[in-house]
This record gives sequence, C-alpha cells and structure tokens, in this order.
Amino acid sequence: MTDELKLYGYARSLYVCRVKIALDMKGIKYENVEEDISNKSADLLKYNPVHKKVPVLVHNGNPITESLVIIEYIDDVWKGVPVLPQDPYEKSVARFWAKFIDDKCAPAVIKVFLSNGEQQALAEAFEQLQILENELKVKGTKFFGGDNINLVDIAADFLAYWVGALEEVTEVKLITEDKFPKLVKWAENFINCKVVKEILPPREGLIEYFKKWTGKE
Amino acid sequence: MTDELKLYGYARSLYVCRVKIALDMKGIKYENVEEDISNKSADLLKYNPVHKKVPVLVHNGNPITESLVIIEYIDDVWKGVPVLPQDPYEKSVARFWAKFIDDKCAPAVIKVFLSNGEQQALAEAFEQLQILENELKVKGTKFFGGDNINLVDIAADFLAYWVGALEEVTEVKLITEDKFPKLVKWAENFINCKVVKEILPPREGLIEYFKKWTGKE
Repeated sequence: MTDELKLYGYARSLYVCRVKIALDMKGIKYENVEEDISNKSADLLKYNPVHKKVPVLVHNGNPITESLVIIEYIDDVWKGVPVLPQDPYEKSVARFWAKFIDDKCAPAVIKVFLSNGEQQALAEAFEQLQILENELKVKGTKFFGGDNINLVDIAADFLAYWVGALEEVTEVKLITEDKFPKLVKWAENFINCKVVKEILPPREGLIEYFKKWTGKE
Repeated sequence: MTDELKLYGYARSLYVCRVKIALDMKGIKYENVEEDISNKSADLLKYNPVHKKVPVLVHNGNPITESLVIIEYIDDVWKGVPVLPQDPYEKSVARFWAKFIDDKCAPAVIKVFLSNGEQQALAEAFEQLQILENELKVKGTKFFGGDNINLVDIAADFLAYWVGALEEVTEVKLITEDKFPKLVKWAENFINCKVVKEILPPREGLIEYFKKWTGKE
C-alpha cells in the first residue's frame, strides 16, 4: 500500500514549518494543502475540531495535530534520519527543551513585540533567552542537537527566523549579538541548513504579515 | 548494575502523583525524596535549575524533569505495562490529549477557582471540559486509555481528584453529574484504580492546602 500523506498548512506559520522540516529531513513526500487562514477549509475543521488550527498531518486518513506531536509521530513511523535522539535520556532532554521553548520562551518573546518593547516584558524575555544561550554555551555544539539539528532546533525556528522579521517591523531589538552571541550564531547556522533554507517562507511576506499583526501598517 | 532511581517530589503535587502512578504501573521501585516546597533542597535546585520544581526523577545520576516528559522516559526505558499506546497513531492521540489537558483544560479550571467562580471563567472551563466529556462519550470506554488507564488518564489526575477538594473549599461546583456525567464516572473509576488509590494524597491535607491557596482560611 502506498501511504497517503497530506499536510494542511500555511506557509508563513512557524508551526507548519516545523513539520515540513521534519518531513524533509526524512525525505518523506507529501501533498501540501495550503489553507486560507481567514477562511479555513471544511477538511481542516473536520481534522482538528478542538483547535481548528494548522498544521494537521493526515496519514492514511488519520489526522495528527500539534506540531511537536506531529514531529514525534513522524519520528516514530519513518526511520532514516532521526529527529529525536535515540537514547531515552537524550530524548527526554530534547523533549524538555522543546517544551521550554513553547511554554516559557516563545510566550515571553511574543509579549515583547505585542507590548512594543515594554521594559518588564523585555526583562522577562531576556531571562528565558539567557537560559537557551547558556544551554548552547554548555553544549558547545553547532546546534542544540549537536552536529545536526534535532527536535529542539526545529522547535526554536521562531527564534531563528520569525523574530528577525518582528524586530525589523517593531524596531525592538531582542536577540542581539552582544547579549546572545551563541543564539545569534546558532540562528545563522540553522537558517542556512539546506533542509531549513528551502522551507522558510520569504521574509517580505512575514514583514507584511507582522505589520498587520502589530498594527504598524 | 543496579539502577539508582530517586524521585524528588511533594506528596500533594498532582504532577508528582502522575509520575508515581506511572512508576507503580510498571512496578518500578524508587527512593522517594519528599521536598519541603517552602525550602527546596540544594539537590532539587541542582537537578532542575530551569524550573526549580518537583517532580524530578534522577536515574543513575541523570535528572529528568516535567511530569509528562518523565512519564515518556519511564515508558521508553522500562518495559512491562505500557503507559502510552504502542501504535504510533494511538500514541500521538494520547500525546494530543495530555497536551490539551495541560495547555487548555487545567488553566481554564484553575482560573475558575482563583476567580471564585466568576461567570466568564466558568463558561471557558465548561467549554474545555465539554471537549473531554465528548471524547469519553465517543470512545465509550471506562478510561481515556480504554479498559485501562494510560497517559491521558494520568494527565487528568487533577480533574479526577484535586478539583473535588477545590470545589469543597470554594463552594464552586464545576464538574457536576448533570453537566459532565461521563467525566464524573471516569473520575470515580480513576480514583478507585488500585495503583491510583494508593498514591493519591489524603483529601484533608489538600483541603487545608487549598484553603490557604484561595485565601479561605
């Protein structure tokens, strides 16, 4: 049987890009279904009735939602290049950092841009980012995953790429080389990974989108 | 080599109980280190420098933190009774619901009790709980895990047990039989599982704790 694999997504979504990166790392072919976020398809609503959001990966009719859950599924089903470490302890460490990024880091960073760089929001985001900076320093590797990207790098795609566009639109500087040299270098390496570079949405589109989002049109 | 396994916890914590349930399901012996939450040990701070919270499971010197991450680790390392489904799709569904409970349901429920049953908070919690009620209805099984508890039931321990104590302290009724008959029946079944019953902290202690927490002393 040939697998039927469809990804319901939106090119500018950092969550959708996470899934695309994992699929491409493994060389998995899939049908990309681009959603109109302002007019979601009946299929999307059927497949993700709880959150009504992209990404949704539909594998032989079975819908999987939530980007990190989808990536774990991809890694469970398809062998080849691993996205999570194979060792159970290293795997738990990767899950910990991916969760940290989603639960602590990303919300703090978003607050900075929504508040237009309010001091308290900046201080909180700096604190969370410093934890990631320290982790890269302690590891001393090119990526959170070591020599190659893994779940943690993918989970941090927002910091590597989307934040730059937000900084440009809002003129608030957050991840700067003097404060976070390791994160800046990591972001550059991540963005330039072949598999990542081919997936990231054009920067101009993000700029336009964030201008609307932050009311800076 | 004999495994050295220590759990840094706090008996009243719903997160710590999750981990204890998973360990007991597999019949794993461990040393329980009870933390004083108002005066955390140097070991706890060393093992969980990011969140400084229980539970932390330390396996042969390696610390694992975050209750759901710890449970995945336990299931990865020790065979025997599975805590997550073995099938990759069913596994992804379980991860989805555990995440839903932590990200959507629990925060909405906590808001109800912190606001002392404010109408908007109640409406939001009802909406999230209805999603779980519907899931139990569709499944038609005793537990989210089917005939036996799995990751999802364990993740929902807060709803099954802690919420009852909060309802008693605040006199706000949230999970009632007329509104959520399936959830009420599920909670009763869950609490009466042998492995769960032996772990849940005494209700009187929770009542006392929540009286302080809600300022109802």
